[in-house]
Amino acid sequence: MTAPNRNTLWATAIVDELASAGVSAAVVSPGSRSTPLTMAFARHEDVHVFSQLDERSAAFFALGRARRTGEVTPLVCTSGTAAANYHPAVMEADQGRVPLLALTADRPPELRDSGANQTADQEKLYGDAVRYYKDLPEPAASDRALASVRTTVARALAAAEGTDPGPVHLNVPFAKPLEPAPVPGDVPTDLDPAAESGRDGPYVGRTTGAARLDDRDLRALASALEADRGLIVAGPADPPGLDAEAITALSHATGYPILADPLSGLRFGGHARVAPVIGGYDAYLSADVAGASTPTWRDPEVVLRLGASPTSKSLRKYLAATDADQYVVDPAGRWREAEFAATDLVIAEPNRLCGDLSRLVGASGRGGRTSVGSGDTGGAFANQWERADDAAFSALESADAFHEGRVAETLLAELPDPATLFVSNSMPVRDLDRFGRPGTTSLTVCGNRGVSGIDGIVSSALGAGSATTDDLTLLTGDLALYHDSNGLLALDRCDVDATIVAVNNDGGGIFHKLPIEEYDPEFTEWFKTPHGIEFSTLADQYGLRYVTVDARDGDGDGGEDGDGTSEDLASAYRESLARDGSTLIEVHVDAEASHRVRKRLSEEATTAALAATDGEE
Amino acid sequence: MTAPNRNTLWATAIVDELASAGVSAAVVSPGSRSTPLTMAFARHEDVHVFSQLDERSAAFFALGRARRTGEVTPLVCTSGTAAANYHPAVMEADQGRVPLLALTADRPPELRDSGANQTADQEKLYGDAVRYYKDLPEPAASDRALASVRTTVARALAAAEGTDPGPVHLNVPFAKPLEPAPVPGDVPTDLDPAAESGRDGPYVGRTTGAARLDDRDLRALASALEADRGLIVAGPADPPGLDAEAITALSHATGYPILADPLSGLRFGGHARVAPVIGGYDAYLSADVAGASTPTWRDPEVVLRLGASPTSKSLRKYLAATDADQYVVDPAGRWREAEFAATDLVIAEPNRLCGDLSRLVGASGRGGRTSVGSGDTGGAFANQWERADDAAFSALESADAFHEGRVAETLLAELPDPATLFVSNSMPVRDLDRFGRPGTTSLTVCGNRGVSGIDGIVSSALGAGSATTDDLTLLTGDLALYHDSNGLLALDRCDVDATIVAVNNDGGGIFHKLPIEEYDPEFTEWFKTPHGIEFSTLADQYGLRYVTVDARDGDGDGGEDGDGTSEDLASAYRESLARDGSTLIEVHVDAEASHRVRKRLSEEATTAALAATDGEE
Repeated sequence: MTAPNRNTLWATAIVDELASAGVSAAVVSPGSRSTPLTMAFARHEDVHVFSQLDERSAAFFALGRARRTGEVTPLVCTSGTAAANYHPAVMEADQGRVPLLALTADRPPELRDSGANQTADQEKLYGDAVRYYKDLPEPAASDRALASVRTTVARALAAAEGTDPGPVHLNVPFAKPLEPAPVPGDVPTDLDPAAESGRDGPYVGRTTGAARLDDRDLRALASALEADRGLIVAGPADPPGLDAEAITALSHATGYPILADPLSGLRFGGHARVAPVIGGYDAYLSADVAGASTPTWRDPEVVLRLGASPTSKSLRKYLAATDADQYVVDPAGRWREAEFAATDLVIAEPNRLCGDLSRLVGASGRGGRTSVGSGDTGGAFANQWERADDAAFSALESADAFHEGRVAETLLAELPDPATLFVSNSMPVRDLDRFGRPGTTSLTVCGNRGVSGIDGIVSSALGAGSATTDDLTLLTGDLALYHDSNGLLALDRCDVDATIVAVNNDGGGIFHKLPIEEYDPEFTEWFKTPHGIEFSTLADQYGLRYVTVDARDGDGDGGEDGDGTSEDLASAYRESLARDGSTLIEVHVDAEASHRVRKRLSEEATTAALAATDGEE
Repeated sequence: MTAPNRNTLWATAIVDELASAGVSAAVVSPGSRSTPLTMAFARHEDVHVFSQLDERSAAFFALGRARRTGEVTPLVCTSGTAAANYHPAVMEADQGRVPLLALTADRPPELRDSGANQTADQEKLYGDAVRYYKDLPEPAASDRALASVRTTVARALAAAEGTDPGPVHLNVPFAKPLEPAPVPGDVPTDLDPAAESGRDGPYVGRTTGAARLDDRDLRALASALEADRGLIVAGPADPPGLDAEAITALSHATGYPILADPLSGLRFGGHARVAPVIGGYDAYLSADVAGASTPTWRDPEVVLRLGASPTSKSLRKYLAATDADQYVVDPAGRWREAEFAATDLVIAEPNRLCGDLSRLVGASGRGGRTSVGSGDTGGAFANQWERADDAAFSALESADAFHEGRVAETLLAELPDPATLFVSNSMPVRDLDRFGRPGTTSLTVCGNRGVSGIDGIVSSALGAGSATTDDLTLLTGDLALYHDSNGLLALDRCDVDATIVAVNNDGGGIFHKLPIEEYDPEFTEWFKTPHGIEFSTLADQYGLRYVTVDARDGDGDGGEDGDGTSEDLASAYRESLARDGSTLIEVHVDAEASHRVRKRLSEEATTAALAATDGEE
C-alpha cells in the first residue's frame, strides 16, 4: 500500500486494523466528509460493506448483525445529524451489550463551532452510552501517528468486545482533499511499510480475560445449589450467547429445570431433548402463585439467574414473591434485577461458571436428569414444572378462535431447522414468550430487549439475517414495521430472503393491556393511534411479495372476510420459504378481542397448570 | 382542576404553565410511560396536539413548526430509544437556534440502571446541544412542589427563547399509576388552587431583554458604515427572522445593497420593490473576482453580516478574499464565520441594530436609496451589483435545456402570494440560491441549515405548514424524501395541503459536484448509491396525488419520454394548487447533465455579470 495522501493512509490504517482483528463487515452511509473511510472500506477485500441510506436504519442493521455474530460491526457516516441518527441503536447496543463501532466523520478542529456548514458538536455525542470514546487527532503520515491510531482502534475494539460489551465511538476529523487524490509530499516515502500495512496480522493484538470465581466462591455457590428445589432462569442472553451444553450440564447436575426466555437461546434447540426446558411460565405464574396459596405447588429455595432480566413480567413478579435465594450472574457486575429481589450478585462469565458448577455439584453425587420424575425431591421439583408447563400449553393451544398469540404458535410449528427468528418488541416478543412451547428445532431467536424500542426492528432483523445462511423470519407488529419501513431498502442490498410476518392491529394494540384503555376518546386518539397504513403498498415499494391473512373475525367458521385461520398463515409461510425473494405476510387481527382471548387463556392455563401439580409427592 | 392523582396533577401543571406562557401546539408520540403528559396535553383546550408515531419525524415536525413560528414547540415521548430519536432534530435546533422543548418520560429513579424494561440512561441525553436540561424530581402534590415545577418549566421556556434560542430538555419521571385513575389521599384537598391552576396567567412570567449596543459603540459602527462601498449580507435568519423593514431602512440610509440568502427572509417580499436586493451572487462571485482582476469591478470596503453563514460558498470565498472590514452581527455572541475573515463581532439583536444604525447613518445626510444609480459613489456601488445581478440572471435563465436548477426557477415563478416554501438541503437550497431571482412575492422560505442534514425534511416542512394558512410547497431531493418518508403520515394528521416537488436524480446527485466523482466504481456504489425507489408507490401509500415530469432527456424537443419541460412542471404545480389535498410532483432529471449545465451557466453568468459592470463610472 502506498497512499496518495494522508487521509487515505489514515483511513486505510483504521480499516486494516479492524480487518486484521477479524472485523468482516461494515455498514456505510453515503456522505462526503466520510469519503476516506468509505473508500478504505470499499477497497478492503476482507470486509463486506453494506451501504444504507438512512443512518438510523444503518445503525440498527449493524446492531442486528453484531447481535447475531457477537462481532463488532463498524458504522461509517458523514458529519452532522447523520451521526445523531445512530443514537437509538447506540442506546440499544449499550443496554443490550452489543458490540458496535461508530466511526463518525467530522470537520477538522478549526471548523468546529465556526458556523461552517454541516458542522455540529459531535464530541461525546452518545454520552455515557458508549464504552469508549475518542476524538481522533488529525490524520498524520508518520510511523508514530499510525501506530497511535492503530492502538486507538484496537482499544476501541477491546472495549466493545470486553466483559461488558457494547458500543464505542471514534470521531474522525478529515480536512480536504477527501478523495484519494495524489498530494505530492503528503506521505513520506520512507514510511515504515509495517506501520502502513499492519504487517501480517493485527498491529495490536488482544488477549482478553473474563470474570471467573475463585475456588472458594465457586464451592460456596455449588453448595447453595445442593438445595432440593432450585431453578435456572435464563433471561435474554447477551452476545455471544448462553451455551446450551454448559447450562444443560448444570441442569443435569442439579436436577433444576431451566426457565428459558425466548431470547435466552435456550427455549429452542437440540438440548431440549435432554434438558427440562420450561417455557409456559408467563401464562401461569404470578406473585399470587408464590407462597402457600396452592397446597401442591412448591416454590424454589434457590434461583440461579443468567442473562438479562426476563421478558416475562409474571415470572419476575413470581420470583420476587418467593423467599428463594436469588443469585444474579453478570460478567460485567451490573445488577440487572429490577424487582430488587436478588440476594447475591455473581460476577462471572456465565457459560464457564455453569460448566464449573456442573462438575462441582455433579461430583457430590446427587441430582441429575436421569432422576427427574423418579421420586427424589430434585426430580420432583422439575417434574412439577414440567407437568405445569404441559398442562398450560395444552390450555393455551386449545383456543378455537384465531388471536394474536396464535401467530407465534403457528410460526414456531413451521419454522425450518435451523432458522433465525427476529421478534419485535411490544406484543410479538411477549406472545412468543407466552405461546412459544419449548422445542428441539435449532432456532436463533433475536430481539432488541436492551431498551425494547419499536424502532429499527426491520433493519435489526435484516442485519441478523445478513450474517447467516439460515432462513430469516421477522415477527413484527404494524407500528414497528412502519417505524422502520426505510429499513426495507436493505433487502435489495444485503442478499437476504426474509419472511416478514406483520401482525396488524392498526396501532398500539399493546395499550389494550394497560389501564389507559378505559379512557376514551383519548385512548384511541393518543395511544392506540390507528394509522390506516396499507402494507400491501409498502411491500410493492420494496419489492416484497405480499400475502394477507385477515383473521379479524376470529371465529374461523370459514365464512366471510375476516375468517383467516392458522392454516392460512402456515401455508402462506410455507410458500414464502419455498420461493426465492422476500415476502410480507400481513395478519390482520382484532387487538381488543385478542387481548381478551389472551387473558382468558392465561386464566385457563393457570388453573390447568396448578391442577396438574395436584397429587404430586 | 382537581387531579385524581399526583401524576395527573404534575403533568397538568406542566402543560398549564406552557399554555399560560403562550405555547399553542405540541407534538406527542404514543407510549405508556408518558401517559400523564399525553393526557394533560390532550385535555388542555388551548393547545393543539399533533400525534406522530415516529419520534424522529415528530421532532422534526416540531422543529419545522417552531422555525416557522419562532414559538417553543414541546415534544412528548415515552422512555428509552424514543427519546434518542429526537437527537437529530435537537442537533439541528441547536445549530439553527430553533426553540424546542423535549419532554421525555422516564422511569422513576429507583428503576434506572436496574435492568428494568425500556429503561436507559436519559440523563443529559443530548449533551451540550440543549440550552437547559433538568431531570425533574418525582411528582409531588404540594404547593411548593408545584411552584417548583412551574418555575422549572418557565426557566426552560426562557432558555429556549432567550438571546441564543434553541432546544431544551426536561426529563420527567413517573411511577404508576400513569393513567388518571383516582388514588385516594394522593392529592391533598387543601392544595392551593392557585398553585394548581396557574391562576389566570403564567405562574412565572418572563420579561426578556436582548443584546443592544451602547451609544458609543453604535456611533462607531454607524461611522464605519459611512464608507462608500459597503454590503449588507443577510445569511439564513434565526427564528423569529430578520425584519425586512429595518434592514431596508439601513440599506436606504447607507446606499448598500442587500445580498440576501434564500433563507434570510429578504430575498423575496414587498421590500424588494424599494430595496436593492441581490440574489445571483452564487453564480458569479468567487475568490477570483475579488481584488483588481477585473478593472471595472469594485470590492466592498465594509460588510455588515446578519444571520448565519451564507449558503453560498462562492459568496463566502469572495468575501474572505476581499480586504473589507467584516462586521458579524450575532445576538448570542457566537462567531459564525468559517472563513475566519470576520474583523469584528457585534453582539446585538440584528433588527433593532439595523433600525438604530439606519437613523444614525441617515442623520449624516448621505446615501439613501433615492441616490442609487444617480452617480454618487454609494449609489454606484449598489448599481454595480444590480447590473451584475440582472446580467447574471439573464444568463442563468437562458438555458435551452431543462436542468435541475430550472425546477427552483419554475416554482418561484408560480408560487402563490403569500406562500411558504420549504427547501431541502443538498441541491435544492443551492439551486434556489443560485437560480432564485429576487422578487416581490411574499414568500416565507424555510430550510434546515443549522446542520444541513437531509433527514427530517418532510416533517420539518409539514410542521412549518401546520403553523400557517399559506399554501405549503416542499422542494426536495429524492434521498431526503426517502429518508423521511415516514413523515408523510402526518399529512392526514396536520390538516396541511402540501405540494411536494421531488427532484429525483436517483441518489446523491450532489456528489457529482465533488472530486470523488472521478473514482468509479466506488463513486456509483458508495456515494451516488442509486436506490431505484418508486415514488409513485410512496405517494399511493400516503394518499398523495402523483404527477411525474420526466426531463431526463433535457433537450425539450417534444420528442419521446424524457422531454418534460418547465411548462409541464408549472402546469402540474398550478393544478396541485387548484385542488384540495396534497400532490407529489416527481421531476426526473439527469444529475450528471444537470451538473454540467449548472457549471456552464455559472461561467456564462460570471462573464455576463462582470461585463455588465464595464463602462461604469
